[in-house]
Amino acid sequence: MNKVNLKQLAKELNLSVSTVSRALRDSWEISTPTKQRVFDLAKKMNFQPNPYASSLRKHRSRTIAVVIPEVANNFFALAIKGIETIAREKGYHVLIYLTNEDGSEEMSVAANLQSGRVDGVILSMSGETGDVRHLMELQQRNIPLVFFDRVCDSIEAPKVVTNDYESGFVATEHLIKAGCQRIAHLTISMGLSISHKRMKGYTDALLRYDKPYEDTMIVHCEGSDEENFLKIRDLLASDQRPDGIFASVEMLAVQVYHACRELGLEIPRDVKVLGFSNLVTASLLSPALTTIAQPAYEMGKEAATILFRRLEKKYILTPDHRVILPARLEVRSSTL
Amino acid sequence: MNKVNLKQLAKELNLSVSTVSRALRDSWEISTPTKQRVFDLAKKMNFQPNPYASSLRKHRSRTIAVVIPEVANNFFALAIKGIETIAREKGYHVLIYLTNEDGSEEMSVAANLQSGRVDGVILSMSGETGDVRHLMELQQRNIPLVFFDRVCDSIEAPKVVTNDYESGFVATEHLIKAGCQRIAHLTISMGLSISHKRMKGYTDALLRYDKPYEDTMIVHCEGSDEENFLKIRDLLASDQRPDGIFASVEMLAVQVYHACRELGLEIPRDVKVLGFSNLVTASLLSPALTTIAQPAYEMGKEAATILFRRLEKKYILTPDHRVILPARLEVRSSTL
Repeated sequence: MNKVNLKQLAKELNLSVSTVSRALRDSWEISTPTKQRVFDLAKKMNFQPNPYASSLRKHRSRTIAVVIPEVANNFFALAIKGIETIAREKGYHVLIYLTNEDGSEEMSVAANLQSGRVDGVILSMSGETGDVRHLMELQQRNIPLVFFDRVCDSIEAPKVVTNDYESGFVATEHLIKAGCQRIAHLTISMGLSISHKRMKGYTDALLRYDKPYEDTMIVHCEGSDEENFLKIRDLLASDQRPDGIFASVEMLAVQVYHACRELGLEIPRDVKVLGFSNLVTASLLSPALTTIAQPAYEMGKEAATILFRRLEKKYILTPDHRVILPARLEVRSSTL
Repeated sequence: MNKVNLKQLAKELNLSVSTVSRALRDSWEISTPTKQRVFDLAKKMNFQPNPYASSLRKHRSRTIAVVIPEVANNFFALAIKGIETIAREKGYHVLIYLTNEDGSEEMSVAANLQSGRVDGVILSMSGETGDVRHLMELQQRNIPLVFFDRVCDSIEAPKVVTNDYESGFVATEHLIKAGCQRIAHLTISMGLSISHKRMKGYTDALLRYDKPYEDTMIVHCEGSDEENFLKIRDLLASDQRPDGIFASVEMLAVQVYHACRELGLEIPRDVKVLGFSNLVTASLLSPALTTIAQPAYEMGKEAATILFRRLEKKYILTPDHRVILPARLEVRSSTL
C-alpha cells in the first residue's frame, strides 16, 4: 500500500497543502472545525506524518540558551533542571551562559546569540543591566525570548515570576508577628524589578503594622561576596542593630549566619533571620533557616514550555503573557 | 612615521615572516636565542602587533564548552567560576552543557560540539560513560580537550585532578582516629576513576589500621536522589549500623544528615560523618560538617589555562600531562 502524503490529503479535503500542514501542527491559524476535518480524514486514511517535517525543522540549531547571572545558587540550579526536563522531551540541547551580574557581559552574550546559534533564549537579568536594547534586538531577529524571575517589565516578552510583592509582605509580617521591632532588609540590585517588589512588600508590611521605616535598615548588597559580608557585619555590630533580618536572596542569608557566628550573636535569640532561598541544607542549618522558597523547578519548566510554544507557533501569546507561580513561606527555628 | 610590519622585521633579521610571527607568539617551535633576537629588534623598531593577528584568530567561535554532569553542586559551580575567570581574560565565551550523569547525553553533546561551534572543551565525565569514542573523536577533529576531576585515564588529554587516593585514605584515617569501629563508604558510579581512587584510599586505610573490610559498608549511590536517600536510610536503620560515614560527594553527606534527622540519630554521637564537599554552609550545619574540600576554583582556572595553552599552541604538553591540586581535610563537629 502506498503511503498517503500531505498532497493527497489536501486534494481529498479541497484545501491547500499548507493549510493541511498547519492544521496537523495544531496551529492557531486554522479554525477548529477545519482542524477536525483534517484530523478525521488523516486518521481514516492512516496518514503518517514525516517525523522530520515538524514545525521545529526550520530551527536548525536544536539548541536553546539559558542566560543567568550566576550558577552558585540553588534557585538557578533548580530552574535549569526544570528547563532541561522540557528541552529533553523536545530533543533540544540547553546551553547555559553566565553573566555574573554584569550588564556588559549580558550584552556580549546577547550579541553572540544573534548569530543564530540558538533557536530561543530563556533569560534572568543581571543586576547591572541598564540599557535593554540588546534584548529587544534578539526578538527583532526572530529569536524568541522568555524571561524568568528577574524579568524586564519594559520588554514585551512572556514572563514567569513568583509573587514577589506578596512574598516580601508575608516575610516581613512573619518577622513582625515573631516579635521583631526593627527589621532590616538586605537587597541586591535595585535595577531589578524583583528587588523593587520585594522591598515594596517589606515597606507596606511595616506601614500596615505601624512599624517605623528606617533608611539605615535597608542594606544594598551589590558588591562582591566579601564587600557584602562586611556591610552585613557592620549592620549587626552597630548600636542600632536590627532584631530581625529579611534577606532577599539566599547568599545574603548565609552571610548573616556567618556574620552572627563571628560576632557571637545567637539566632534567633539576638536576631531572627529569614531569606528567599532554595538551599537544600536550609533545614539542616544551626538553627534551621526560615525561607521563602520559590518554585524554581516549576518556573524553569514553565519558561521552557512557553518558549517551545513560541518556537512551534502553536499558540498565540499576548505580548504581556505572564505566569505567576507563588512562593511559599517555610517557617523554621531561625524566626521562632 | 610608518608603522613597522612583520615583513620589514623579517627582512631585517633575515628570517621568514612565519618564523618571526611564531617567535612573537612565543611558540615552542622557535629556539630561545632566535626569539630573543626577534623580541629585541621588535622592541627597538617599536613594532606593534596587529591585535587581530593573534594566534587565536583562526578559532572563530571564541567560545569554549564546559561539559559537566550536574550544576546543583558547589564543586562544579566553583570550578565554572575559575574557568570563567581565565576565559574572560582571553575574551572568550563559556558555554555550559549538562550531561545529568547520562552517558548518552554526553555522547550527544560531544556530537553537537564536533560541528565547530566551540574551539575547545573542558570536561568532567558523567557517571555512566562507558564507551569513550565520542571524546576521542573530538580530539581527532582538532577540538582540544582538557579533563578535570572526573577524568578518563584511557584518553590522552591533559587532566586536572585532586589527590583522590590520599584524600580517601586521610578521610578514613581521620574517622578511625576519631574512634569509629565500623566505617561505611558512600560512593557514586564505579565507572569513574575518582570513585576507584577514593575507595582504594578507604580500603587501604582500613587495612593499615587493622579494621575489618565489610562489603555491606560500601553503598553504591548511583540512582536518583530519592533512591540514594532510601539506601542511606536503610544503612543507618540496620542492625549493623556504621558508627562512621565517609561520603564521596557532597549531596550524599547532606542526605546522611537528612536520614539521621528522620531516624532520630545524633551526629556525631551515634554516627560520625565526613564528606567530600565545597558546601558554603558546611560550617553552619547542625553539627558543622567535616569536609574534604577540593580546590575547585583553582582546578577550574588550571583546566582553562591549559586549554588556552593548547589553543594558542604556545606550549607542548605531553599527552599524559596531569596537574594534581591537593584537597584539604577540614575538621569540624561532625567527627569530633
